[in-house]
Amino acid sequence: MSKVRFQLAISLDGYAAGPDQSEKDPLGVGGTQLHEWALKLEAWRRPHGRAGGDTGPSNDVIEEVQGNVGAGIMGRNMFGGGPGPWDEDHPWNGWWGEDPPFHCPIYVLTHHQREPLEMQGGTTFHFVTDGIESALERARADAGEQDVLIGGGASAVQQYLAAGLVDEFDLHITPVVLGAGERLLENVGDLELEQLRAIEAPGVTHVKYLVVK
Amino acid sequence: MSKVRFQLAISLDGYAAGPDQSEKDPLGVGGTQLHEWALKLEAWRRPHGRAGGDTGPSNDVIEEVQGNVGAGIMGRNMFGGGPGPWDEDHPWNGWWGEDPPFHCPIYVLTHHQREPLEMQGGTTFHFVTDGIESALERARADAGEQDVLIGGGASAVQQYLAAGLVDEFDLHITPVVLGAGERLLENVGDLELEQLRAIEAPGVTHVKYLVVK
Repeated sequence: MSKVRFQLAISLDGYAAGPDQSEKDPLGVGGTQLHEWALKLEAWRRPHGRAGGDTGPSNDVIEEVQGNVGAGIMGRNMFGGGPGPWDEDHPWNGWWGEDPPFHCPIYVLTHHQREPLEMQGGTTFHFVTDGIESALERARADAGEQDVLIGGGASAVQQYLAAGLVDEFDLHITPVVLGAGERLLENVGDLELEQLRAIEAPGVTHVKYLVVK
Repeated sequence: MSKVRFQLAISLDGYAAGPDQSEKDPLGVGGTQLHEWALKLEAWRRPHGRAGGDTGPSNDVIEEVQGNVGAGIMGRNMFGGGPGPWDEDHPWNGWWGEDPPFHCPIYVLTHHQREPLEMQGGTTFHFVTDGIESALERARADAGEQDVLIGGGASAVQQYLAAGLVDEFDLHITPVVLGAGERLLENVGDLELEQLRAIEAPGVTHVKYLVVK
């Protein structure tokens, strides 16, 4: 059955991004440290069009998390921030290049209406201005029997958690202490969780939780 | 070689205790949820003088963490809070009963001078009023080749982390979201960590980190 999931890398003190996030530095100061373990994986390099990479437990986790995804959702800053409303003379197609690594429809939560943006490789960005539930409804319709993956950032994830719309999630807990930034598990309301698994990997611990409804 | 270590159970959102901590409720609202996985273990019951209990991965971790400890350090609230300075007419010997589960010298960080308190079973509480470094120095002298275990709470741990005096630590990450309370990894300064291991267990994930110096 189709699930609504998310995955995020966090610091040991619970931050999904460092302080002083900006359009030029969306991960904030020190935030790239949260993703270092992932960048060298085969499962990360392949959808970005790069050969080679490490295998092992982290790679298996990422393969699984990225697998069986029929549609995605992300916040505007994860799409690429940038000036808005986007004007036709200065189009801005996000961080993700001409061939984004998603290869499925992606619903971008934003306040700025825009026509869908069809990229190479099967990714189309749809811009949703009427709220998280509308975005999820459309993503579910696209995903069919496959899952909907909320890509981030923390704010988008928080909204879906607080609304009780997430079925399960993977956290990649890194041995990093940021000390400041954007916390993941804040403003999420009452949340009852069941630990589904924990996997040790070099430089990161992968945990997975079911949201009890 | 003797190490300075701590262990604490934390919520998935990073709290070591819930909100509204008080002398009667030192774990705060919801804080007991952080320890439920531990209470049924053989390794927890035995030092508390109770027979039986579960074995398995969590039990192995606790056996290891509690093993090779020559002396302990704890904050005043973990000793037992209570009115201070303790007067001789109304002695208050802490939360831990007549036969505390430590069975070694314990240095209590406090502002109130008091004579050492010798309990049954090898536990003696020493009250240290001249700071964390003094307490550690005395604990190290007692521990010899064995380790010094900082028992908590979060505030005591934070002070030792910030001072660069901790060698390694175990966190027991529970599938609990408290939403408020006393965070563990706050005010700890710059901290470089190396993940030593992660162990999956029913209802808890045990992670261990080395503090890189």
